[in-house]
Amino acid sequence: MNEPSTSARPPSATGSEDGALRKAVVLVSGGLDSTTVLAVARADGYECYALSFDYGQRHLVELDAAHKVAFAMGVADHVVSRIDLRRFGGSALTADVEVPKGREIDRMDEAIPVTYVPARNTVFLAFALAWAETLGASDIFIGVNAVDYSGYPDCRPEYLEAFEKMANLATKLGVEGKATIKVHAPLLSMTKSEIITLGGELGVDYALTSSCYDPHPTGRPCQACDACLLRAKGFEDAGVADPLLS
Amino acid sequence: MNEPSTSARPPSATGSEDGALRKAVVLVSGGLDSTTVLAVARADGYECYALSFDYGQRHLVELDAAHKVAFAMGVADHVVSRIDLRRFGGSALTADVEVPKGREIDRMDEAIPVTYVPARNTVFLAFALAWAETLGASDIFIGVNAVDYSGYPDCRPEYLEAFEKMANLATKLGVEGKATIKVHAPLLSMTKSEIITLGGELGVDYALTSSCYDPHPTGRPCQACDACLLRAKGFEDAGVADPLLS
Repeated sequence: MNEPSTSARPPSATGSEDGALRKAVVLVSGGLDSTTVLAVARADGYECYALSFDYGQRHLVELDAAHKVAFAMGVADHVVSRIDLRRFGGSALTADVEVPKGREIDRMDEAIPVTYVPARNTVFLAFALAWAETLGASDIFIGVNAVDYSGYPDCRPEYLEAFEKMANLATKLGVEGKATIKVHAPLLSMTKSEIITLGGELGVDYALTSSCYDPHPTGRPCQACDACLLRAKGFEDAGVADPLLS
Repeated sequence: MNEPSTSARPPSATGSEDGALRKAVVLVSGGLDSTTVLAVARADGYECYALSFDYGQRHLVELDAAHKVAFAMGVADHVVSRIDLRRFGGSALTADVEVPKGREIDRMDEAIPVTYVPARNTVFLAFALAWAETLGASDIFIGVNAVDYSGYPDCRPEYLEAFEKMANLATKLGVEGKATIKVHAPLLSMTKSEIITLGGELGVDYALTSSCYDPHPTGRPCQACDACLLRAKGFEDAGVADPLLS
């Protein structure tokens, strides 16, 4: 797992010995964080393979955003994997439970939120690992960060380190010593406003992204769920207007 | 991860304090090994939740077998999750590559076989973890063993231990200290004949199972792929006739 990356390295830093670009699988939800991560991976010189999931989330607006973002960022490929976590139940993001609205930001991390999806990052990273192995890629990027993890066990650094260790034991790449699989979480300890500032520097168009847990049928964000409130505070703290609301 | 379990513990050994059965998620492919594992979990007193995958394998006969096995064993529920690993390519089990036939058994483990599916056990265990978390189950059973791993990185004990460690950092159950997630691999160091003998003691009907990587359209095993050859040798060594062939 990488330390937070706040500046882009030159493309040559990640080129392979024969001068070809190194490939990276980037988990792209269409949200603000993963879009910024895609921009970081691109700026770091990786050829990016974007991976999104249709996992029965009720905010499918996200997937439209993921398509737009991946296209705008010039990824080498974008795959949407359909998986059904609903069959396992347990979360407001996939089941018929009310998304909490209007919560105070500093109280969001008091408990694991009802929007928690069981083992979600483990499932997502497992698919990313499968694709990485097929591509011969040893780099996986994921957009977890300190604000978003607010009680999600699978957004903590010790979890990501354990996944990385497991991944290197799970795959031909790791076992044959050809490469060490790295799970990059460049936003891990960044605040929302730092992420937005970094994205601005990297040319991210946040108008393409979607953060809301419970958007209106038109795609317009509810501006009351945890994700909308964190996003709004992030733009406010960064001193930038959210282009999605203009 | 458990040491190989060669005898069944009494049901009370796994009962919770209020006397209710403890739940376990059991990965059931419909093959000989996972069917035996299901019998072990049942004999150990777990209420079993069978999980199978339609992952684009070309031997869908397996899933029919999984249905029959799960029904015969009286599981509490059986879920077949549809996931598309084909999109990531890379294996004869899911792609249009010849399954090797007639290989000598003692040479099967010389290299990672072409039937390797990238990150398969990681993906399968990730789904099992998601379901376990929803059920409030802390026990996952998987039928990897010493013979089958023949070069598959994700069938080795160090891999399973790393997955278990990661799982305990990934989930509410582990983080809140309510339970320790265990990945049970009771067949890990058993030979095929030992597995078949154990299954016989536990009343497994191997006529319901399917092992072949490349069955005929009728479901009849090819009797020439690695899986068929290992199965045949297992029954021969155990001194038992394979009911599938009678």
